[in-house]
Amino acid sequence: MSLDDKATKPHDRLSEALAADMDAVNGLIRDRMASEHAPRIPEVTAHLVEAGGKRLRPMLTLAAARLCGYDGPYHVHLAATVEFIHTATLLHDDVVDESAQRRGRPTANLLWDNKSSVLVGDYLFARSFQLMTETNNMRVLSILSNASAVIAEGEVLQLTAAQDLRTSEEIYLKVIRGKTAALFSAATEVGGVIAGAPEAQVRALFDYGDALGIAFQMVDDLLDYSGAADSIGKNVGDDFRERKLTLPVIKAVAKADAEERDFWRRVIEKGDQKDGDLEQALALMAKHGTLNATRDEALAWAAKARTALSALPNHPLREMLDDLADYVVARVR
Amino acid sequence: MSLDDKATKPHDRLSEALAADMDAVNGLIRDRMASEHAPRIPEVTAHLVEAGGKRLRPMLTLAAARLCGYDGPYHVHLAATVEFIHTATLLHDDVVDESAQRRGRPTANLLWDNKSSVLVGDYLFARSFQLMTETNNMRVLSILSNASAVIAEGEVLQLTAAQDLRTSEEIYLKVIRGKTAALFSAATEVGGVIAGAPEAQVRALFDYGDALGIAFQMVDDLLDYSGAADSIGKNVGDDFRERKLTLPVIKAVAKADAEERDFWRRVIEKGDQKDGDLEQALALMAKHGTLNATRDEALAWAAKARTALSALPNHPLREMLDDLADYVVARVR
Repeated sequence: MSLDDKATKPHDRLSEALAADMDAVNGLIRDRMASEHAPRIPEVTAHLVEAGGKRLRPMLTLAAARLCGYDGPYHVHLAATVEFIHTATLLHDDVVDESAQRRGRPTANLLWDNKSSVLVGDYLFARSFQLMTETNNMRVLSILSNASAVIAEGEVLQLTAAQDLRTSEEIYLKVIRGKTAALFSAATEVGGVIAGAPEAQVRALFDYGDALGIAFQMVDDLLDYSGAADSIGKNVGDDFRERKLTLPVIKAVAKADAEERDFWRRVIEKGDQKDGDLEQALALMAKHGTLNATRDEALAWAAKARTALSALPNHPLREMLDDLADYVVARVR
Repeated sequence: MSLDDKATKPHDRLSEALAADMDAVNGLIRDRMASEHAPRIPEVTAHLVEAGGKRLRPMLTLAAARLCGYDGPYHVHLAATVEFIHTATLLHDDVVDESAQRRGRPTANLLWDNKSSVLVGDYLFARSFQLMTETNNMRVLSILSNASAVIAEGEVLQLTAAQDLRTSEEIYLKVIRGKTAALFSAATEVGGVIAGAPEAQVRALFDYGDALGIAFQMVDDLLDYSGAADSIGKNVGDDFRERKLTLPVIKAVAKADAEERDFWRRVIEKGDQKDGDLEQALALMAKHGTLNATRDEALAWAAKARTALSALPNHPLREMLDDLADYVVARVR
């Protein structure tokens, strides 16, 4: 790999290496989001699918399948499946979070209505199951249907854990495994399964996706409290204002003295926030070193992801996945 | 069959004949709606599943499998799958329709919130796919994932067709096939498929479920405009107030003169309704005979359902399915 290659982002290098496959995935997505009678479906879907998302998840499936020597054609179906599941969850998330913006554009629930977002999400979810059944591979069906259940369970868990100061690091891990890592690990695992890779490689692919997803979400949660939050299209303190229990806060609550607990109870549990509270929260996190501790955990998960790759064949795509794990945490290093 | 048997409702006779199977289905449903970490999931699910619904759809699957000679165990999984899909769509429907009551009890979106209804619906949908993959039967997976897509498409179509006077009888049929008949026909078809029934019988089971579902929904839409609406837990004119284009209205609009079109435009398209408008709508339907015409179509679909059964083995369950098709339209005969 030349120095020039190294200078581009690992995500872009993956995009380039998998360009032909990604074209096929995009074609399949366009094809399957059509609806003869309900034009609202492709309208809403296109708004989200064509909004310039990074297509990270389908790329993981394609890379996993290719680096295990798969020669097609079902990695394309699985990659499209994964993107449809992702898109369906985004549509429903925006309804649940009452979001007005995603990727810098107004959300579907704002442009159309909550009803359309709920029902089109359901349609894409059903379409994803149709797509995966076309592979005729029972094991990938089992992996992806399990992942869908874990995703939904994680979302419900996040909902009920919100504003609850008793939320533990264990619960936090379950939530982010559900809302983020489950689809990453399913995406990589099914790539290996469809390629007929040996069990050790399938397991390694799962571990890579799981650890990558966890690192990814921890970085996201960390950036929400650091100056770089605008790089992910959010404002500093969004999670604070939404009273979400993310890792930096959970760690600060665990170390809080009586007075600090009163503060957290007021701003998170009661939601009684005023000017200066975000600054006070940041000061408490700094005092207890919880932003650094969160960063260290994210780095450890990224390292775990890279370690998992050692069980996989030596391949340019493996190097790109390795770089990707590094890149995910580079924003906070 | 004795006269005493005849005196009970066909639904109750099916319940009795399939009691052991239904116990197994109920056990599986209770088992699979559990969630170790997110108690909100079984709470919301139980509220709906245990609300005394008739369990008509899972019973159709069990009856279809048994009358084709199936000896288990996967008809139970499929019946539970069908009930989970049904429950998931009810949860999402109540969010979309902003309903406050279902089966005479407050809806989940009212008791908890829309977020819980959306996410628990997603969880049940994912659970349904897990359940069906356990059958290891690709064909039932294909049938049920196709049905899920048709259901969601029908719901979106209903959403976009609402308040649109151009809605044709063809569109209406697509909507009710999606929102109601698709799950009925999938429920009966997979029963035959899992039993390994001959193609002609599988086809007959599909036709029966399809026609039964269409008759069922047409009767529902008809009762909404007749005095017996309270027998289905609705008030007369609910659809009118919600400006839904159901068959009695579509037929009346098609026959409307200029003045009548102005009326329909005002009350349905503009939603500008006042005292006496429902009575006026009923008078127009009576003038053009559209309630009778709708009833005749429902009766024809019920007859079609009964005709389809002739391709199936002679069996007490077949008689009950025959009676069921008759019973569905008995309320309007």
